[in-house]
Amino acid sequence: MAIAADVKANQKENVSPNGMEVLMDLVSDDLKAVNALIMKHMQSNVVLIPQLAGHLIAAGGKRLRPLLTLASSRLCGYQGDRHFGLAACIEFIHTATLLHDDVVDESDLRRGRDTANAIFGNKPSVLVGDFLFSRAFQLMSRDSSLEVIRILSDASAIIAEGEVQQLMTTNDLETNREAYLEVISGKTAILFAASCRLGAVVAERPKVEEEALENYGQYLGIAFQLVDDILDYSAKQAALGKTVGDDFREGKMTLPIILAYERANDEEKVFWTRVIEKLDQSDGDLDTALTLLAKHNALEDSMTTAREYVTKAISALDIFPDSIEKSALIGAVEFSIERDF
Amino acid sequence: MAIAADVKANQKENVSPNGMEVLMDLVSDDLKAVNALIMKHMQSNVVLIPQLAGHLIAAGGKRLRPLLTLASSRLCGYQGDRHFGLAACIEFIHTATLLHDDVVDESDLRRGRDTANAIFGNKPSVLVGDFLFSRAFQLMSRDSSLEVIRILSDASAIIAEGEVQQLMTTNDLETNREAYLEVISGKTAILFAASCRLGAVVAERPKVEEEALENYGQYLGIAFQLVDDILDYSAKQAALGKTVGDDFREGKMTLPIILAYERANDEEKVFWTRVIEKLDQSDGDLDTALTLLAKHNALEDSMTTAREYVTKAISALDIFPDSIEKSALIGAVEFSIERDF
Repeated sequence: MAIAADVKANQKENVSPNGMEVLMDLVSDDLKAVNALIMKHMQSNVVLIPQLAGHLIAAGGKRLRPLLTLASSRLCGYQGDRHFGLAACIEFIHTATLLHDDVVDESDLRRGRDTANAIFGNKPSVLVGDFLFSRAFQLMSRDSSLEVIRILSDASAIIAEGEVQQLMTTNDLETNREAYLEVISGKTAILFAASCRLGAVVAERPKVEEEALENYGQYLGIAFQLVDDILDYSAKQAALGKTVGDDFREGKMTLPIILAYERANDEEKVFWTRVIEKLDQSDGDLDTALTLLAKHNALEDSMTTAREYVTKAISALDIFPDSIEKSALIGAVEFSIERDF
Repeated sequence: MAIAADVKANQKENVSPNGMEVLMDLVSDDLKAVNALIMKHMQSNVVLIPQLAGHLIAAGGKRLRPLLTLASSRLCGYQGDRHFGLAACIEFIHTATLLHDDVVDESDLRRGRDTANAIFGNKPSVLVGDFLFSRAFQLMSRDSSLEVIRILSDASAIIAEGEVQQLMTTNDLETNREAYLEVISGKTAILFAASCRLGAVVAERPKVEEEALENYGQYLGIAFQLVDDILDYSAKQAALGKTVGDDFREGKMTLPIILAYERANDEEKVFWTRVIEKLDQSDGDLDTALTLLAKHNALEDSMTTAREYVTKAISALDIFPDSIEKSALIGAVEFSIERDF
């Protein structure tokens, strides 16, 4: 119960008053049901499992994907309760990917974040991720259909492919915008897309609505990740006391870096090669990087790309008549680019 | 094709002429079909995925679990081809657990083995494991039933629990035989049990046959893991040029150590506390451990336990009339304790 209360507090704290409020208000009772299922099904007799899973699940989760499933189901007029279990499964899959994403290699720089991994170590994080992932499919095999399992296992495979592709593009300055968009479509957007699509699936709506919600989720996910990658270099983050430059220290090829490198002069290319490709960084390099990003409008132009996806996401909802649910989903999109965390 | 040929060569090399020959001969054509599916479905446009997965899948896999599914299906008189895909899914799940089991923490001692992890690093190993795991559920959601997905997602959750429990018992000398048997039932035996049970499921045989095959697989799996844990301290391994003492160096609480500690005098307890609990080991400690295992008959007595499970496994097949399939499954059990690798 204490954990559930913390979740609530965290959510309230983290949510922008503009964009997300309609969505949060709309499904707040449904979200309680989902949170109860999450707490129930992450239990295990092996005590380290709920302990470690709880660390991540209870801490600051925005429950964005479950919220999308809940709102999409309502948009499609769904009256049952299958979407609660599905939303919990989606959060388990998401949590598993977070746990696995935090796995580090000995050569990696320790990140400042208070990850489950930093506390419990690589191996428990991996295994608890596996547990949550398996648990999701256990629940689906009892409460859902083969179609739902198809959608979420497809999404999971694409997430893994996106994550591996991201590893392959890290430290590679030849990575272009297309490769970057492919990576974030896989590692982030596909689960947003599935979260939304499942609303139409449980409501047994026509394919065209399923696809509209899938597109909405896909574009929203891309915008969301773009903003994430921009915020990593943003003064807003610094003002909030958050770490700036995590991606820089790993040599991740996100859109701001791709744009700055495309527009770099010879001297700047030497700099990027040293810090991103060779990962040979010292004090002051992050400041230099920030200066170059500003010089070439890399953050603003990345934001323009994010806004293009925001427009596409909102347009995808055109086939649905106006409703409070539709406004809530549009609000979520606006939140994705207005947020400063 | 080169990979498939290597697999074949490796399998031939590794198989004991006594125990496994009947099983291998019985399903050799079926196994070719399974291997073809494995090679086909581990492909991805993200080249690192087949590269890394192939490293493990092509190298020395005995395909024991697929063999069990194939033989169990035949024992149940199954005439279709659904078991090929299922056997491939089981091998993907098994490979994913191997990849995740090889993840190391910075504090861990590097093991001598040529793991995918040692070559590619923690993170790619984790992500490719996730891909194979997702791929297994993708395939099942297309070619199988909710019942099959239920069985294999249950098994996967139990594997993860067993692995986490193993982490919790590592370096803990209070671990007793019951806790150890619980760990290996989870981390190893459950997938053997599922592999066998699915033979009866695809053949749509009565529950009693499903349970008989499940029990057979469970007992076989326990015997198999017991022998694995005994071989880690065995001169047979050393004679084959394999590493001895991997478990010792990690402070894993396997049955030989549990028995030796139960029977230890005060001086020996001080030794075990230092090397297993504190993991404070130096040259000569493994030799001391081997001497103490011999003094207390710890390996022989562990082998006796393994033989008890072998007997149980064979008895579980009593409800089936004699047949070449039944002989093959009995051969697999005998192989599990006769093998020296």
